[in-house]
Amino acid sequence: MVEVKDNQIIRAVILAGGQGSRFWPISRQKKPKQFFSIAESGESLIQATANRLAPLVGLENIVIVTNIVHRPLVEEHVPKSRILCEPFARNTAASIGLAALFLRHEDPKTVMITLPADHAVSDADILRRTLQRAIKLSAGGERLVTIGIEPSSPNTGYGYIRCGAIIDAQLGERAYAVNRFFEKPSFERAQQYVASGEYLWNSGMFAWRVDAILKAIREYMPALADALDKIDPTIGTSKEQQTIAEVFEKLESVSIDFGVLEHAKNCAVVRAEPFGWSDVGSWDQWAQHFKHDERNNLSRGDAVVVDCDGCIVHSEHRLIAVIGADNMIVIDAGDAILVCPREKVQDVRKVVEELRKRGRFELT
Amino acid sequence: MVEVKDNQIIRAVILAGGQGSRFWPISRQKKPKQFFSIAESGESLIQATANRLAPLVGLENIVIVTNIVHRPLVEEHVPKSRILCEPFARNTAASIGLAALFLRHEDPKTVMITLPADHAVSDADILRRTLQRAIKLSAGGERLVTIGIEPSSPNTGYGYIRCGAIIDAQLGERAYAVNRFFEKPSFERAQQYVASGEYLWNSGMFAWRVDAILKAIREYMPALADALDKIDPTIGTSKEQQTIAEVFEKLESVSIDFGVLEHAKNCAVVRAEPFGWSDVGSWDQWAQHFKHDERNNLSRGDAVVVDCDGCIVHSEHRLIAVIGADNMIVIDAGDAILVCPREKVQDVRKVVEELRKRGRFELT
Repeated sequence: MVEVKDNQIIRAVILAGGQGSRFWPISRQKKPKQFFSIAESGESLIQATANRLAPLVGLENIVIVTNIVHRPLVEEHVPKSRILCEPFARNTAASIGLAALFLRHEDPKTVMITLPADHAVSDADILRRTLQRAIKLSAGGERLVTIGIEPSSPNTGYGYIRCGAIIDAQLGERAYAVNRFFEKPSFERAQQYVASGEYLWNSGMFAWRVDAILKAIREYMPALADALDKIDPTIGTSKEQQTIAEVFEKLESVSIDFGVLEHAKNCAVVRAEPFGWSDVGSWDQWAQHFKHDERNNLSRGDAVVVDCDGCIVHSEHRLIAVIGADNMIVIDAGDAILVCPREKVQDVRKVVEELRKRGRFELT
Repeated sequence: MVEVKDNQIIRAVILAGGQGSRFWPISRQKKPKQFFSIAESGESLIQATANRLAPLVGLENIVIVTNIVHRPLVEEHVPKSRILCEPFARNTAASIGLAALFLRHEDPKTVMITLPADHAVSDADILRRTLQRAIKLSAGGERLVTIGIEPSSPNTGYGYIRCGAIIDAQLGERAYAVNRFFEKPSFERAQQYVASGEYLWNSGMFAWRVDAILKAIREYMPALADALDKIDPTIGTSKEQQTIAEVFEKLESVSIDFGVLEHAKNCAVVRAEPFGWSDVGSWDQWAQHFKHDERNNLSRGDAVVVDCDGCIVHSEHRLIAVIGADNMIVIDAGDAILVCPREKVQDVRKVVEELRKRGRFELT
């Protein structure tokens, strides 16, 4: 076990602002993916994320960044956590900046680990061991640490991190300086990345000290830093919410990767031991969490699947009958049904776009 | 126009006992296909059938053979017709025999034309002209006349009729003796039939005199003839319904084609002018009655069809979104959803069988 100084404060920040439109029609603006369960246990993704972090920091030291619409859901799913409410969704840089600002009031040297609310992890012990390594690397100073996942395929849905020099004698090949961050690549490029052995997937999980990330924000995202400066003196006062609203409204939507990490010189990456990570980014990935039949069909709920191979059938409210189809996804969510070949699963968000275009917001 | 003697009584019999399981999930035991509309007009198939026959015989001279479950639906859809109720479904020979028995009380020389309730016809005038030719051919005596349809493809879902000699100078190549009836053929055989030009599809529409069909039933289906003999003296008495029930329970299920026509020597066939016939035997055929989009998709009801070709999407109760799929059929009927490739549409009844096996009769 990696040792961290006894007086080091550690806090966990869960980013729960995702819309999960690739997970339509179950995931909706009103109740996105993170509030759904993908496990037989019935635990929602956000509950599972909080429960995995609790042994590390305690539930009461988890900060969940959400918005006014989802606040009641967060309170229901993770009742003991602290909740930070964003008035407008402005992507991860703003969420992380706001959380860091609040945590600085406690102690600027606090290490904040940051995780998305809607990822799945099958081995929590290994995840925690990985996070502790990231905490150790970041606790000493200004390092911005990302958790990197050993790529299992040339997936074009993730960002990639090229590993540089080993930075910690004790951790050895588990921790590197970041040579460079790469945005989602083409398939050919992803194949090269995986073949080289030098690249890891960017998991969207981070560890850094509050003062370090705020310093980096000031350097690479000065507009956000100025905005946070305006909020800072109002924290805990009657003007807090109104100031956040005024300031957030004008912010650009920028991810922490794009806004800060791709520019920062002091980034590190912890190469995770495999903890069964999935960002549950599509129905296809969701299905991998369940047992399939001998013809590789997954059927959940009231379903009749006849002469099919490789189908995913999920019914919440009524019978779905699928006959003679291969590799089709059929999802019933009560007021809407999705039918889509597995190979086209990345296009599910097109339906959500089309529905918005048609003014059918109640279905998105 | 073909002339029929002025004093010739003509009656139409509509067989409405079909279950339409290839049309699941819209068609159910409780409300089969014939009670649904396939046209923009909203007229059900049985209504349309009756309305096409009305100019020929008058609505009040249409006899609809149905059963106790569907009687209220028949009364609602064709309120002016006569209704004959079968206590048990025993296929077309029994239905036709029973109808002939009732009509014999009026006049044994009555020509009864017989049509299924659930076929579609786009040109009623041409249908009636064809039926009048069949009436003329049958009115004179014992001829059992079938309406034959010029085959447009080697369809393996129909019976075929091989035409023999021309039998009427005036009708010429519109009327032949039947050389032979053939059950549903293999694809190769169907190709040969169509290529030869000697074969017609058996439409399941007939014309014959009441005395002629009852005589043929006595010759080729003596058990049915005996059964009808038992019913005959009770017609119009208090014992009628009970006698029909007792007699029908013991009858075998045999089609008029298999039980009588394939054996009879006096069969004729009227080669129909094209009247846009379809037996609406599958979702695929149903779709042909509607306008498709430029990528050959048919979508009815609340549907979002994105990047699809050749899909049939029909929603009755909620949004269906189909993305990136080709030639898929997606049907929502409220409590059940069907997803099936067009090429597998003949297997829809497998779902109905599977549901019965599972005891899910409420869905069949």
